[in-house]
Amino acid sequence: MNNCIIAQSGGPTVAINASLAGVLLANGENRYFDTVYGSINGITGIFNSKLLNLSELCATIPDFTEKLKVTPAMYLGSCRYKLPKHQDEPEIYEKIFKFFAEHDINAFFYIGGNDSMDTVLKLSEYAAEIGSDVKIIGIPKTIDNDLCGTDHTPGFGSAAKYIASSILEMAHDTYIYPVKSVTIVEVMGRDAGWLTAASALARNEYSCAPHLIYLPERAFDENAFIEDVKRLLETNNSVVVAVSEGIRDKDGNYISASSTSTDNFGHNQLSGAGKALESLVAERIGVKVRSVEVNILQRCASHLASLTDLNESAEQGKRALLLAKEGKSGVMVTLKRTGNTPYCVETDYQDIHDTANLVKNVPDSWINAEGNDVTEEMLTYLRPLIAGEPVIRFKNGVPEYLDVRHLKANN
Amino acid sequence: MNNCIIAQSGGPTVAINASLAGVLLANGENRYFDTVYGSINGITGIFNSKLLNLSELCATIPDFTEKLKVTPAMYLGSCRYKLPKHQDEPEIYEKIFKFFAEHDINAFFYIGGNDSMDTVLKLSEYAAEIGSDVKIIGIPKTIDNDLCGTDHTPGFGSAAKYIASSILEMAHDTYIYPVKSVTIVEVMGRDAGWLTAASALARNEYSCAPHLIYLPERAFDENAFIEDVKRLLETNNSVVVAVSEGIRDKDGNYISASSTSTDNFGHNQLSGAGKALESLVAERIGVKVRSVEVNILQRCASHLASLTDLNESAEQGKRALLLAKEGKSGVMVTLKRTGNTPYCVETDYQDIHDTANLVKNVPDSWINAEGNDVTEEMLTYLRPLIAGEPVIRFKNGVPEYLDVRHLKANN
Repeated sequence: MNNCIIAQSGGPTVAINASLAGVLLANGENRYFDTVYGSINGITGIFNSKLLNLSELCATIPDFTEKLKVTPAMYLGSCRYKLPKHQDEPEIYEKIFKFFAEHDINAFFYIGGNDSMDTVLKLSEYAAEIGSDVKIIGIPKTIDNDLCGTDHTPGFGSAAKYIASSILEMAHDTYIYPVKSVTIVEVMGRDAGWLTAASALARNEYSCAPHLIYLPERAFDENAFIEDVKRLLETNNSVVVAVSEGIRDKDGNYISASSTSTDNFGHNQLSGAGKALESLVAERIGVKVRSVEVNILQRCASHLASLTDLNESAEQGKRALLLAKEGKSGVMVTLKRTGNTPYCVETDYQDIHDTANLVKNVPDSWINAEGNDVTEEMLTYLRPLIAGEPVIRFKNGVPEYLDVRHLKANN
Repeated sequence: MNNCIIAQSGGPTVAINASLAGVLLANGENRYFDTVYGSINGITGIFNSKLLNLSELCATIPDFTEKLKVTPAMYLGSCRYKLPKHQDEPEIYEKIFKFFAEHDINAFFYIGGNDSMDTVLKLSEYAAEIGSDVKIIGIPKTIDNDLCGTDHTPGFGSAAKYIASSILEMAHDTYIYPVKSVTIVEVMGRDAGWLTAASALARNEYSCAPHLIYLPERAFDENAFIEDVKRLLETNNSVVVAVSEGIRDKDGNYISASSTSTDNFGHNQLSGAGKALESLVAERIGVKVRSVEVNILQRCASHLASLTDLNESAEQGKRALLLAKEGKSGVMVTLKRTGNTPYCVETDYQDIHDTANLVKNVPDSWINAEGNDVTEEMLTYLRPLIAGEPVIRFKNGVPEYLDVRHLKANN
């Protein structure tokens, strides 16, 4: 028997199941592996023997891969587990490779972000050391787009489309009153500003929102921000600001509330960059101001996924399977952009050492001199990633996704 | 000449432009009015002579009404203006009716919520008093669904679809980790719980989220809430709670933060019911907890509009025009439900006295005995309202809506 196993890890994205679907589709085409297993809750499913037989599900659930491709979050569940070094805890590695042997597993695919790529690195190094020929392959994902060595990551395009579309809709909402107002939209991205930058894609021929964009890559200056807003309020009634949750001042302190508040239960309240800037505008400018924390929908709103993102994510899953077939291990699938007019990408791969534990920030030259907007180069990079809309089926007025009861049953 | 004028007022909804489109479509069909004007920023556009010639826009912008039907917020802008009594400030009324005379206006349509219906009431009473035959007609809208005398209001179905779909997607997001967690989703609705109730439509064969629903119509009991959550955590890893922003304790105090916090600019922070319950769970139960304030997208996310809502809103606009043609005044268009299997509604109208300044709350019998869920009757009422998805065109990866530059230019 020649089997493989897949797991997913880290935070959800809209496209992480599309990569899983890609692996299954590629195996459906060339039947390389007899059985594709899924490990529930990341690599911990292997320790805990929580498995799904994905090949069986493909064969029995109608349109399984098609529905999987648009289902948000992780069909296999996730974990937040940092694999220790094998020098420190060899028994964990022994357990994993014993599991591989018992189940005739010849390849392990890990779909995840930075921490998952660290796991791929460690497992592949261990495999080499013990002379195992189990292929260990990483498939990236993160809405933050901060993985090195790949043009962009699965999940980012959909999150970017959600941010851009939502800001356009919120801009319509802000334009209706003939009064001065400021709307601050806080976007995810603790260290890298890619997703906040994508807010610029909301702009069109009639709407300049967001009028200001602040990324964590540049130190945030409170006075410059207030001056920026004041200047814009001279010619606009409504000013929309996109701000990364991770903005910091020049000393590296997060611009957020380290607050000790007293709600009516007497508890502490915490709030982020958006709320902090809201307070600042209220106090220093005194106009109507609102902050919106774009919530977890930016990473799970499949109903607004980017078709480009889903297709590319599936392609990366397919490529991962082919890499295993070719005998590659200790690698991560990547995307290489070969052109912008027309937009063209191809899948590739790189040594996992060149990805794991590194962070790709927004290049300084893609942020304008004032640090309150992005450049045309950034827009050229971003535009193709949000193109296209998948067909989402609806049932009883809400999106129809795959049943995930197995996650609850296994937990 | 026989002209009419339309204005929009109050907070945005996804369907308020569909009603405007309905008036225009009906006039396009029977050419009753020579010119349909739009008043910018509610009735204040009449005082300030800020007008659009909507008939001209229909004739010159391709697919104008079709695009209008799916464009969020208000194409004509809004205002927050409470019309004084004509006994107190007769000159305002004189100005309005002088404007009507000068522009050969024979009907005024006001699309809005409770405050706008109060304006319809006052203007129609004044018209009767001075013997004017200008027809004054109200077309309802509000995501809160709290207007009396109509089965449901334009905008509510789309907001309900957004809430239900978003909670399903957030539920997928919460199911991925094998750890106990509570997610609190705060939904708009200060006094009426209709929209929070609609969260129940997120439930399907594999997902019971939201597991708890709290509406403002019942007094919120902190201890009962904690017991509810604890009980559910015994059998579920992930508990999702939908809560109205307007919940109050038995003495009528809002469950929200009247906080004096100290963020790192030293400003006060305010937060709502969701944050308050988050703190409560953190302190009294101690599991992972997150609160999500569903932001203004619940009232402006046209990309997730209910087709039923948009179609019914357009029908109500059409009916308004026909009512004017029939000589009716001082009335509001309504919807009468004539069946649920199959769902069937027809437009009707009622005297504006029976609507203005009254609030329709959720009937007590549609909330369960424990006050933490809604009944099957509520679900039967809600289900048809979120059915169907309009075709939303996308351009460069974001929804394509109507240009609203006239709002900025006029402000």
